[in-house]
Order: sequence, then structure tokens, then C-alpha cells
Amino acid sequence: MPRDSADSSFVERLSSGFPADMFARAEQSYLEEPRGRWQGARGFVARPRSTEEVSDLVKACNEAGVGIVPYGGGTGLVGGQIAPEGEPETPLILSLERMTRIRAVYPQENVLIADAGVILANIQAAAAEVDRLFPLSLASEGSARIGGLLGTNAGGVNVLRYGNTRDLCLGLEAVLPDGRVWNGLKRLRKDNTGYDLRNLLIGSEGTLGVITGASLKLFPRPASLGTAVFVIRDAEAALELLSLAKSRLGESISAFELMHRTGLDFLAEKLPDVRRPFGSHHPEWMILMDIGLPRGLDPQEALETLFVDAEAEGIVTDAVIAQSEAQRDEFWAVREQIPEANRRIGAVSSHDVSVPLGELPSFIARVRQAIAQVGDFRINCFGHVGDGNLHFNVFPPEGRSRDEFLDETKAIKRLVHDISAELGGTFSAEHGVGRAKKADLERYGDPVKLAAMRAIKDALDPKGIMNPGAVLP
Amino acid sequence: MPRDSADSSFVERLSSGFPADMFARAEQSYLEEPRGRWQGARGFVARPRSTEEVSDLVKACNEAGVGIVPYGGGTGLVGGQIAPEGEPETPLILSLERMTRIRAVYPQENVLIADAGVILANIQAAAAEVDRLFPLSLASEGSARIGGLLGTNAGGVNVLRYGNTRDLCLGLEAVLPDGRVWNGLKRLRKDNTGYDLRNLLIGSEGTLGVITGASLKLFPRPASLGTAVFVIRDAEAALELLSLAKSRLGESISAFELMHRTGLDFLAEKLPDVRRPFGSHHPEWMILMDIGLPRGLDPQEALETLFVDAEAEGIVTDAVIAQSEAQRDEFWAVREQIPEANRRIGAVSSHDVSVPLGELPSFIARVRQAIAQVGDFRINCFGHVGDGNLHFNVFPPEGRSRDEFLDETKAIKRLVHDISAELGGTFSAEHGVGRAKKADLERYGDPVKLAAMRAIKDALDPKGIMNPGAVLP
Repeated sequence: MPRDSADSSFVERLSSGFPADMFARAEQSYLEEPRGRWQGARGFVARPRSTEEVSDLVKACNEAGVGIVPYGGGTGLVGGQIAPEGEPETPLILSLERMTRIRAVYPQENVLIADAGVILANIQAAAAEVDRLFPLSLASEGSARIGGLLGTNAGGVNVLRYGNTRDLCLGLEAVLPDGRVWNGLKRLRKDNTGYDLRNLLIGSEGTLGVITGASLKLFPRPASLGTAVFVIRDAEAALELLSLAKSRLGESISAFELMHRTGLDFLAEKLPDVRRPFGSHHPEWMILMDIGLPRGLDPQEALETLFVDAEAEGIVTDAVIAQSEAQRDEFWAVREQIPEANRRIGAVSSHDVSVPLGELPSFIARVRQAIAQVGDFRINCFGHVGDGNLHFNVFPPEGRSRDEFLDETKAIKRLVHDISAELGGTFSAEHGVGRAKKADLERYGDPVKLAAMRAIKDALDPKGIMNPGAVLP
Repeated sequence: MPRDSADSSFVERLSSGFPADMFARAEQSYLEEPRGRWQGARGFVARPRSTEEVSDLVKACNEAGVGIVPYGGGTGLVGGQIAPEGEPETPLILSLERMTRIRAVYPQENVLIADAGVILANIQAAAAEVDRLFPLSLASEGSARIGGLLGTNAGGVNVLRYGNTRDLCLGLEAVLPDGRVWNGLKRLRKDNTGYDLRNLLIGSEGTLGVITGASLKLFPRPASLGTAVFVIRDAEAALELLSLAKSRLGESISAFELMHRTGLDFLAEKLPDVRRPFGSHHPEWMILMDIGLPRGLDPQEALETLFVDAEAEGIVTDAVIAQSEAQRDEFWAVREQIPEANRRIGAVSSHDVSVPLGELPSFIARVRQAIAQVGDFRINCFGHVGDGNLHFNVFPPEGRSRDEFLDETKAIKRLVHDISAELGGTFSAEHGVGRAKKADLERYGDPVKLAAMRAIKDALDPKGIMNPGAVLP
């Protein structure tokens, strides 16, 4: 662990070697995470403009034994970007916000190279400018930065078709804990020359180094897009619809999201301006599905045919198929506003689990039953069901507040994660471990893997300066 | 490095703890690699039947400081599976050939779990039995085993669409160098719970542990397949055709292979029974292309349309489109027999490079020019051009033998790899480093990455028993 703080005397000592505006006292915005769950330690933030400056900063911190918290867009949901108050040493926040250059775009190669501080929406836009797709897409895309997305291996709504963030990365540039720069910004689809350092850094949540640049995969844009909301028979029918859709549409399915009546109820209560797909009728279980097709196929026709077949098999009972771009946006607004409605209701406990696809129905049934025994909670179970990934969130009964139930949070979290583990699932599908889920990692993680992680961490960061206190139990 | 040999006294000491047939003197087949480049050290082979037995063997070797060479199907092309004669200590060959069980298939989840010793063709067949595709496909699929394919992150002909072997793996079971079993056989598409040990082991060529089982991704089978051979204007036109095809067919292109006149010449000379696509006419540059389409699209029509457009743009001059499954097989036989024809001619030097796609034409032109200055060689440049991966192989002039030119091999290899490196490419796209390319890794590898690799190796395998002498300089 770090032996010193990034206090004013440390910053003063360093500042002569850097541009005058490198260091600042960390404002409140750096010390909060999106759900407001805890307060970060008030220290300093460094805002380098180049990889070289990052390297110099890391070297100086390494020498002094000062911790570093790499900071991207600040959108992480497990506190990986926040060093909490009360730790013995205050780390330096290293924000990549000034490294926002798209370094190069190679449309013919379907490659884009970006600084780590580029905001996801800007990468999407740069890809679109050359008629390509960068498929990573999630609610925080307007503020999340690619370095943080890689550091946490973010998921989102297009994983089913295009994979997680790690699958979209061809190469990295990173500053390792000793301050040396690894230049791995390859534009190659195949490169079998030694250990996969790229994937080791991706998802390590800043504990093994600071990502400063990335070489990213672009994709051809599908010729046409289609979106539908299907009302399914029950939770189990989600998998039946997915199987049927896959057999019909192969890999053309970009998104396959589960929504539950509770989500629509919450929208009606808290965000009534969001137009709901079946008006005031809120079906129990729905699937929001996106497809992207090659030339020669019509997405509306494909979705209609799928509906007819799925209805004949008793899988779906109703559907709305978007007839326009505007309607597609409307359907997606429902899905995207559910987390905000959740936030306004206030969850007693929220979860980011994934289980093997075949275990999803049994997971949902078992958890519902177990929670019913704890109390009369409302459950909003939604998310990336095509990936086996559910955001299974538990809310107080109507008219009551989450604050009345905070004593139950721990028990609920435990039972949800226990059942997920029993079914071969995980306690963190796409959010990572950060600081919030370290105890879970210790409880549910494979001990041999944990020992290997610890050995790797000690080997690459013997002073423990990189994101101290995060991930590793 | 190991401090002791797996000699008869070591094996005798161990044998009481294992089934009687666990150990045997290694026959010649374990001591050769496919191109017959060197001879392995004659020692013992262990053939465990279970992960537990692998664990016991590794523990025993670790205690005794005896090296282990993990052995799959023996098809590796860089000597990773062969500990050469002349090393101070003879390692134990640990063959996975008795671990050939497909443990489970989950068609609904598109997941298959297999022992590490299952032959690739058997995995393909098990997937086909449930109407799914396991897309990894390469010339040695009848003998390569999945553990070795993962250990080397094998490539093959379908990488363009489905990725390298690492992209097809959801989870691993592996015995780490201390003999402990990591159970990471997840069936999850999303699991962000700590460092990516899976990808660290994949491609580490047995130097960090022994893979004993894998959880693999299956895919829906495309509704219809199409194959064509296009005659392209010149090497540069390969990229133009790829761009055009991608814009028309999106991700439906499964394979995009370059073939050169020399390959057809060699076939005519050495394997005249292989039917060549344009008979005795051998065009200079050709692309063999495979597409797999969803329902509602006709592959022959799609390929014809592509041809018409590409001809209009001056990209292609001729084409044959397969009219039947038999003709598809015929076209593929040409591609698949080229390496055998190469072998019979006898290469002075062969290469497995990849460069950024946009640099391919300049790579081909520069290397041809540079080699012409060394001597009057024949060049067969072919391979997975859609991935930027070329097998750029250099042969003696007609009527002469490779043995006359072995003095030039080193210089040719150097110039090919130098030019590849200058263009941002690699000296090993899909074959790995093994023992044959260690000096290349030292010459071309990023020093910061190499230092990190060494630190990781020392941390996980402090005694250096896992595949000693492979990969790490």
C-alpha cells in the first residue's frame, strides 16, 4: 500500500516539473460517484495533456510511494474511481479529461485510435463520420471516457452482437506502475507475440496501470435497423424468443433487453412524459429488440415474421414494431429512462448479475421467492437478458422510502448473489469490482484466481500505488 | 529454470502415486514438429486422464523442480511443444490426449464445455450435431486439440468473422504452476470480477499453466453459404474488394483468403490431382471468399452482384462462383493444399506476418523488391488477407533445392520481419513464439511489455517449470 499522501507539500514539490495548471485541489465532482453512495477523500487532481506527462506523474508517485486513482468520466458504479475518506493516505486523482484527441481513423481498416480521455459519444460520432460503427453503447455514453470504459471492460446494450469493451480493442498504450510507457497501439487483428497484456489491463480497473490510448475496432454499419417491443408469455419465454430469433436472424440481433411491468410503473410515476409502448397498459414481461440487417433484407418484415412465428409457438402475445426512426428512439427512451426512474424511486438494493442463459428463469423465480420472505418489496428486473445479464433491483413497497429498509440491504444483496453463484453466475456482470464489491470478490471469487491476481499485482505494482484499495481483497 | 530432469528415477519415484500406464518413454512422435525442424529431447511422457491427475503431476514436478512441456495435438509450427535436445534438464512431456470428453453442450446458450484434449474436428462435429457452429477452422483441425489451440491462440480461416481462438472462449479450467486448479469454466458472456486470467493463459503457450478444460462459444449456423474465387487486378485490389464486400455484406464474410499464381504453379507441379479453379490458366492474384448469410438472402446472387460491381470498378477481372457444395469443397481444397505443395517444394524461409490492412500492398511490394536483391527466389504469398495476415513464403528458383540456399534463410527472415515491423506489423500473427521465434520477440517486442511478461512469469511460476525455454527471451 502507498506510504505517503498526495498532500500539498507533495504537489508543491512536483509542480515545478509540470505546466502550471497540472495540479488543482479536487473539486466535489471528483469525489462523488453517480449514486452518491460515498464521499471521496479531498486531495489533489492532476490533469495531464500527454502520455509523457502521465508517465512523469506515475514515476514521481512511484518514487514517493504515493497512490494514484485513475479517473475517466467518473461514471463507474462500483466506486473504482473514488478513494474514500478515512484511508490513511490520500492518493492523487489522475484525470484523463485533457487527453481527448482522436489520433487517427483508418476507415479501410476499420480502426480508430484515440486518447484515453475521449468521451464515448465522440468516438461513436467519429466512426459515423466515416460511415462506420463503434458499437459500444450505454446510458452514460455522453460522459464516460474510453480509458475508463476499457479499465472497467464496460458492457452495455450491444454486447450480444459485438462483445464487451475488451472485444472492441485491438491495442493499448498504457503507463505501467513504474512509469514506463507500454506502446501496444497495434492495428492488427492477429498478433501472437507473447502474453496478452492488453486484456490483462482491460478490466483491471486501474490497479495495474493507466491506459493512455487505445486502438479500437470499427464495424460496417448495418444497411438497415429495426426495433420492436415484444410482450412475452413469461420470463422463460425470453429465452425461447431469443432462440427463435437467433435461428431466424443469426448474428443480426444487436440488442435483446428485458423490461418488466415495474419499470413501466416507475416511469408512469416518476417520468410520465416518457411515452410507454403500450400506453397505460403495462404488460408483465417485455423484450426490446434491435436488429441490424445487411442489404436486401427488410427489418420490419423480419420482425413481423418473427412475431407471427413466435405468436404461433405461444412465446409472445403482442408486439409493437417501430415504423420510423422516431419510434425507434421512443422505444429506446423507455429502456434508457428506467434507471433514472429507479433512482427517483430509490432502491433498497441493486444488482448487476449474470447467470448462464439457461438458468435465467430459475434465477428470477428463486430470487423473487427468497425476497418475498424478507419483505414486501417491489422488484424491477430488467437488462441485457440476451447476455444473461440482469439488473435485478429491489425497491420499497409503494408509499414507503428506501431509508426505512436499509437494514435489509445487506441480506438482500447476499441472497441475490448467493443464488447467482449457485447457478454458476456472477455478482458483477458489467460494472466491475471497484471498492463496492471487494467483499463479494473475496466471498465468491475462485481462491486460485485470487491468489494469481495478487501475485500479478505484486509483480507489476510492488509498491501498490495504482488505485490502492480497489478490486483486490 | 528447472533444476532437475524428468529422468527414469524421477518417473519411478512418482509412478506409485499414479495409474500404472501414466508414464511412458516418449516415442518419436512426441519429439518431432510438423516441419521436422528439430529433434526433441528423449524423455518421458505422462498421459493423465483427469484434471486431478494433471494437478498431482504438476505439484510433483513443482516440488522436484522438474520442467513440464504441455502437449496437445503436436501441430504447433514454432516448436512450443518440443523441448529440444541439448538442454541441461529434460522436461516431462504432459500430453492431454486422454482427456477427450465433451463435458456438456448447451445449445440454447450456445456453449460447449470440453476437456483440453478434444480434437478440434470433434468439437466442430459436436456443435453441428445440435445445429450450431464452432467456427475455429484450420488445416490441422483433424489432429489439433483445443487445449493447444487455446494455448497458442490459434487463428485460421474464419478469424475475419468470428475472431481468434481467444474470442471463442468463455472460460477455462487450468492447473497453475503450483499445481492448484483454477476453476474458471464459466458459461457467462459477461463477468467483470477481477483480472482476465483467461486471456492471460490463452496464448501464453503453456508457460503459465496447463489448460485442462474450456468453455467455448457456439454460433448459429448461417442459413446459407457461398464461395467464390475472384481474380483481382493486383495485390492492392484485395483491399478494395474487401472494402466493397464489407459495405455490401457486412459481417457475413467468413473467409477472405489471398492466393497467388505461384501457389497454383506449385499445385500443378506437386499435386496435379487438385483441381484448380481456372484450369491450366493461373491468374496472378486471386481471392477465395466465403460468405454465410441469414435467411432470405441468396449467396450466389450476392456473390454475382458483388462481382458485377467489383468488375465495374476495375477491382476484379474474372471469377468463379461455386454452384454446389462439391464445388465449394473443390475451391477450398485448392487453398488447403497449398501448404502441402509448399512443403513438397521446400521453402528457404516461411513467415507468418500480419500488418495493418492498409499497409498490405506496400508490404508485399517492398518485400518482393528486397528479396529480389538477395537472389532469384520464387515467392508464394498467400493467406488470411482479410485479417492482414500473410504467409509469405520464399522458395528456391525452379529446379534448385532449398538446401542450396539455407545460408540465405536468416537474411530473408530478417528483412521480412524488419519490413513488417516498420509498417506496424508483427513477426507472428497466428503461430505464436514457441522456441523458434524467441529471438524475434526479443528484437521486435516492446521492452516494457517484455519486462511485464517476465515479471508475470516469475510471479506465477517462480521455479520456471512450465514449458521451460519457450516464449520468454
